[in-house]
Amino acid sequence: MTHTHVTAPTQLLEANGIRFAYRKFGTEKGTPLIFMQHFRGGLDHWDPAVTDGLAANRPVILFNNAGVASSSGETPNTVDAMARHAADYVAALGLTEVDLLGFSLGGYVAQSLAVQNPGLVRRLLLVGTGPRGGEPSEDAGVRQHATSTDPRTGESPLEAFLYLFFSPSQRSQAAGKAFWERRHARKSDVDPPSSAQTMTAQLAALSDWRQVKGERFAELKRIRQPTLVVNGNNDIMIPTINSFTLSQRIPNAQLIVYPDSGHGSQFQYPELFVSHARTFFDA
Amino acid sequence: MTHTHVTAPTQLLEANGIRFAYRKFGTEKGTPLIFMQHFRGGLDHWDPAVTDGLAANRPVILFNNAGVASSSGETPNTVDAMARHAADYVAALGLTEVDLLGFSLGGYVAQSLAVQNPGLVRRLLLVGTGPRGGEPSEDAGVRQHATSTDPRTGESPLEAFLYLFFSPSQRSQAAGKAFWERRHARKSDVDPPSSAQTMTAQLAALSDWRQVKGERFAELKRIRQPTLVVNGNNDIMIPTINSFTLSQRIPNAQLIVYPDSGHGSQFQYPELFVSHARTFFDA
Repeated sequence: MTHTHVTAPTQLLEANGIRFAYRKFGTEKGTPLIFMQHFRGGLDHWDPAVTDGLAANRPVILFNNAGVASSSGETPNTVDAMARHAADYVAALGLTEVDLLGFSLGGYVAQSLAVQNPGLVRRLLLVGTGPRGGEPSEDAGVRQHATSTDPRTGESPLEAFLYLFFSPSQRSQAAGKAFWERRHARKSDVDPPSSAQTMTAQLAALSDWRQVKGERFAELKRIRQPTLVVNGNNDIMIPTINSFTLSQRIPNAQLIVYPDSGHGSQFQYPELFVSHARTFFDA
Repeated sequence: MTHTHVTAPTQLLEANGIRFAYRKFGTEKGTPLIFMQHFRGGLDHWDPAVTDGLAANRPVILFNNAGVASSSGETPNTVDAMARHAADYVAALGLTEVDLLGFSLGGYVAQSLAVQNPGLVRRLLLVGTGPRGGEPSEDAGVRQHATSTDPRTGESPLEAFLYLFFSPSQRSQAAGKAFWERRHARKSDVDPPSSAQTMTAQLAALSDWRQVKGERFAELKRIRQPTLVVNGNNDIMIPTINSFTLSQRIPNAQLIVYPDSGHGSQFQYPELFVSHARTFFDA
C-alpha cells in the first residue's frame, strides 16, 4: 500500500542520541526529497497538496529536527548545529544522496547542510528564505505573530499564518484559509506542538543567522548544487530581495517569484509550485 | 499544411500607411501570441526552438514593426510610438485579444501597448527587459557590440550575440553558438537586415525610455494583465534587477530568473523557457 501525507505513520529513528520523528511516503524509487521545516513547525505544518504532489514521482520524507515536536533531544541555537543533526538523521536513514526542500528556517538549515556535506545533496529547493546576513524584516508585526500561541492548541493560530505567510489581498487570504484546511486534513497520529525550548533556541539561531560572518554572501559560492529559489513577491518575514540575492550569488540557481503572495507562496499556489519543483527536480 | 518557423511564408499587411511584414504559424485555435523583437532584430532573430515550441498549442505571429527590416515606413524614435504602430498592425489583423511576448526593446513596446490598449492584451510575457527609468547597463562593452555590424551580412555578428545575450561561461557560450545555428535554420525567404535609420531611431527610443517620467515606476501599476517576467541572472544589457523591479511593481507578475545566463536566457534554455511560458499562458 502506498502511503500519503495523511496516512503515512509517524516513525522514529535514533541517530547520535536523538530519536527523530519522521514520515515517509511517495514512490520507492528516485532521489529522496527531505523537507526541512520553518520556525516552530513540525510534521503537520506542511501542505498535503505540495507533499503529495511531489511524492507522485519520488520518495518524500518529512522529519522533525532535534528537539522539535515529537523528536527527542534539545533544539540547538545555531543553524549549523541544526544542519549537523539533520546530517546525522539522513546518515541513519542510510541515504547517501538526497534532494532538499528547505522552507524559511529550514532553508537556512538546507544551505548549511549543502555547504557542510556537499556530496550528500543532489538538488536544493530554497523556499521563502535568505542568505546568512541578509536583509532583515522591516514589518513591525512579524515578531508578535510569529511567537503567538493559541492556548487551546499550543500551536501558532490561523491568524498568525494569514498575517505571516500570505499577502493582505482577499485572494491570498482565501488561499491561506484553504491551506489551513488542507494542513488539518490529517486527524490521527498527529504531531504535538513544538516546545518553548524549541522556540527560544530557534529564535537564537535566527538572530545568529542575521549576522554577517566573514565576507558577506561568500558562503553562497560554495553551494554548487543546482538550486531553485522560490518566494512570494511580498514576503514580510524574509524580504523577497533575499531570494533575489540567493539567486544572484549561488552559482547555479534559478529564481521563481509568485505574484500577490508572501512567505508561504508555495501554499498559495501549490499546483504551480509542484509543477515548477517537479520540472526542476526532474531536469 | 501546418507551417513552422522555417516554412511560414513572409506576408505583408497594410495598416495606417505601413506595410507590416509578418509570419504566422502554429495552431488555428487559441489566443494568438505576438512576438515583439529586440533592438535591430527582425523576423529571423527569434529562436525556432522557442517559437515552434510555443506554436505547438497556439497561433504564433512574428512581425516587423514600422521601418524594421522588411516592413515599410520609418522606425519612430519613442517606445510609445512603436506601440501605436503595433496596435495598428494587430487591429489590421482583425484581432481583438492577443498575448504578447516582448523581448528587450520589444518588452518596452509590449508594456506600452498593454498600458495604452489594456483591453487588447490578455497575458504579457516580458523577457530580458525592464521598466521605464530602470537601472542602466554598467557594462562598458555593450554599446560597441550592440551597434556592430558584420560587413558581409549587414547584421549583428555572432560575436555580438555571444557577448550581449549569453554569460561568459563555457556552457553559456556553447548555448549561444547552438542558438546561432538554430536561428539560421531558415534558408529561403529570409528577412533583410534592419537599416541605419532603424538603429538610430531605436537608439533614441532606448535613450528616451531610460528617463523617468512622472513618479518612477508608477506606470507599472497600470499593467493589469497576468504577467510573466523572465531574465538571465547576469543580464549586462538591461541589468537583472530591472526584472525584479517589474515583478515587484506590476500587480500580477511572476518572475523567473535562469542561472548562468544573460540577456538572451530564453535562447539558452529554450525547452525550459517554453515549458514555463506554456504553463503561464495555459493557466
